[in-house]
Amino acid sequence: MSKLLEGVDQSNAPYIIVSSDTHAGLFVEDYREYLETAYHPEFDEWLVTRHQHRAMVEELNGEYVEQWERENEVGLKGAYDPDIRDKTLDADGVAGEIIFADGDAVTGMESPPFGAGLSAGMITDSRLAWAGARAHNRWLEEFCATNPPRRAGVALVPITHGVDEAVREIEALAGKPGIRGIMIPTRWHDNPSYGHGSYDPVWAACADAGLVVHTHSGEADPEAYNDNMAQYMQEVPFWTHRPLWQLLFSGAFDRFPNLKYVPVECGSWWLGDLLYKADAMFGGRNWKVKKMSSRTKGLIQRLPSEYVGTNVFIGASTMSKVEIRRRYLNGIDALMWGTDYPHPEGSWPNTVTRLETDFQAVPVEETRLLLGLNAVRCYDLDLDGLVDIAREIGPTPEQLNQDLGLRTEPNAIREARFWFDDYDIEWKG
Amino acid sequence: MSKLLEGVDQSNAPYIIVSSDTHAGLFVEDYREYLETAYHPEFDEWLVTRHQHRAMVEELNGEYVEQWERENEVGLKGAYDPDIRDKTLDADGVAGEIIFADGDAVTGMESPPFGAGLSAGMITDSRLAWAGARAHNRWLEEFCATNPPRRAGVALVPITHGVDEAVREIEALAGKPGIRGIMIPTRWHDNPSYGHGSYDPVWAACADAGLVVHTHSGEADPEAYNDNMAQYMQEVPFWTHRPLWQLLFSGAFDRFPNLKYVPVECGSWWLGDLLYKADAMFGGRNWKVKKMSSRTKGLIQRLPSEYVGTNVFIGASTMSKVEIRRRYLNGIDALMWGTDYPHPEGSWPNTVTRLETDFQAVPVEETRLLLGLNAVRCYDLDLDGLVDIAREIGPTPEQLNQDLGLRTEPNAIREARFWFDDYDIEWKG
Repeated sequence: MSKLLEGVDQSNAPYIIVSSDTHAGLFVEDYREYLETAYHPEFDEWLVTRHQHRAMVEELNGEYVEQWERENEVGLKGAYDPDIRDKTLDADGVAGEIIFADGDAVTGMESPPFGAGLSAGMITDSRLAWAGARAHNRWLEEFCATNPPRRAGVALVPITHGVDEAVREIEALAGKPGIRGIMIPTRWHDNPSYGHGSYDPVWAACADAGLVVHTHSGEADPEAYNDNMAQYMQEVPFWTHRPLWQLLFSGAFDRFPNLKYVPVECGSWWLGDLLYKADAMFGGRNWKVKKMSSRTKGLIQRLPSEYVGTNVFIGASTMSKVEIRRRYLNGIDALMWGTDYPHPEGSWPNTVTRLETDFQAVPVEETRLLLGLNAVRCYDLDLDGLVDIAREIGPTPEQLNQDLGLRTEPNAIREARFWFDDYDIEWKG
Repeated sequence: MSKLLEGVDQSNAPYIIVSSDTHAGLFVEDYREYLETAYHPEFDEWLVTRHQHRAMVEELNGEYVEQWERENEVGLKGAYDPDIRDKTLDADGVAGEIIFADGDAVTGMESPPFGAGLSAGMITDSRLAWAGARAHNRWLEEFCATNPPRRAGVALVPITHGVDEAVREIEALAGKPGIRGIMIPTRWHDNPSYGHGSYDPVWAACADAGLVVHTHSGEADPEAYNDNMAQYMQEVPFWTHRPLWQLLFSGAFDRFPNLKYVPVECGSWWLGDLLYKADAMFGGRNWKVKKMSSRTKGLIQRLPSEYVGTNVFIGASTMSKVEIRRRYLNGIDALMWGTDYPHPEGSWPNTVTRLETDFQAVPVEETRLLLGLNAVRCYDLDLDGLVDIAREIGPTPEQLNQDLGLRTEPNAIREARFWFDDYDIEWKG
């Protein structure tokens, strides 16, 4: 604990806020110039369906769409306009950002060609999934170059559409300034699950290239919901972070120690219990260890909770109050705030107001980790460049109504992780 | 809170322990006389595969099997021998029991014909699923009659193999003494999910007959695990209690107010967060309510957490320490201890020893609910009959090292359910 916070500024200096969850994308038609010409005829057909989709959403939910787009007319253009985007981030107090595809979450009009962003797993023709992904990645590279310290792009690599193609794309992305991660489809559909060894070339390439692997909230199991939105909302976090234990328990982080994985916009409230159950299985003195040892022994070398903050970070987006309270339990060194800009579910355009109410009881040093420094470490961002931006726009601790004298309790994490006592597990934190 | 505990005995009278999770079953060959003769040829073929299965388990895990069966030789015969069973329950301090199929969890030699118990969902020929279920149900009725106050049987009704057949079986079971519930397959496989209206006749029949619907831990999603046991263990609670939100959010408990559902042997640690997210969606002042209201408004009439303890109870089996600590959060009126007798994962044959260490900090009145009275209420058991049994064999509070003066804090539940404050939800508890 103290080690994690060592050297973290406890003064009233402005916060370096990094949003671990933003979105950007061209208006659909404008992707044409980034798309290989062979795909233009199919692109034209797809555009027709996109416009039909928007019309349908307007018909179902027109009042909401109209109000959202009217009230946020300028800020929404920041999905593709870098100057507007910078001004909008400034106003929201956000210095840096981790950028995902699909700028428009309401009517889907800024989706990469063929829906190759958040919906890539559902594309049936793999050729189109890759063509759409490459088009977006070309544009994303340019877009991130408009303000290098500020923008870290997450490229599209739909690995369920072919591992070889994925490795080629990752190798092509490696070392490109501005590209700091890849997003894979949240679900593996009819392919082997992500714990299967056939994906090892993907993890190896990402570890080599220093690209963080992401799954992002969106896909779930629609056939199970009978059109009931509450069913979807109840389950979507499970489907989003399900790859976590696929990677962890299959030993991917041990075979590729530089591999990092971040589930995004599925909260963090579930993490403590996941670690409790996983640590108890692997580290506790109970029957499960014996039963499982023959199959899993040697596959993972540390306790599951010890991979959090090194190989696993959490794009927790707009953390709820209880998620902030559970920060020690879940990993003060792993949780990353995100605004979800320019989507409607997040804290934008009221991020600072939200922080003013919700972080009053959090020590400054911890707040710095949650709001930005964890992301700087996860993505190896340009800290000096971000400090320069934050100096002008970051809210200060006093603006967030925080007490500069509040300090972290030395045993805070140890006490939050109740299962170390319950299962007699040795504490190495 | 106080209402729930009203009239609960705080003296040193013995505990009425009801195990909400026990198993019973004939040795496979002995099911023949309960099986319709038309199925005997297929039964003979199936028996061969059962013996092959046992041989395989012995080959993989022979030392464990040999030790388990040697050390528990007598107690294991209680799977089908009522006298031995009564003596074994006596020694474990257990007065009453809720009985599921599949007595032998280690080598599967007490499975109903064709695997119609915990594996019924995976049977491909529905004829066999029903034949096996009926055979077990015939035997179970006789078995429960050997000690009526003590034994409450859960019959097999594999609803994924046909709703009409299910309704016929439920109507045949209705009013049979000793039968208090049905077990349905944990997963719906390729059928409509359990929130679909096509299952309404099943829920209606169960509500009419006063039969509690159960899913029991066992099935998960094996294709996703690549033979990795940790993956299975991580997910099996999700798959076991997934029907909870299918029933809840589809309004099944509102259409059939007498319907009760109990997920069994998947713990209870997940329940608080499930209620937090669900209540926040339906009862909180946040964006989700507005977005969802058009689809779900009117479907459910109370807050999700208000169905717990009325329509939803939890067969939490052997509760871990943290589950005992979270009893207010999860529902002091809904959690039910279970020993899992005669399976090896539970507290049998050391139930009393376990209770002696783990319940010291729990007030007597609450312990009475968790260990037995919640089950009495859920299943409408014969309380007087159970008191008579418990008088002879139930451990007393003092034996469990409990302080008879310890009382429940009046605001304990209100304070544990943090989301009522976080989301400004009105408390009606």
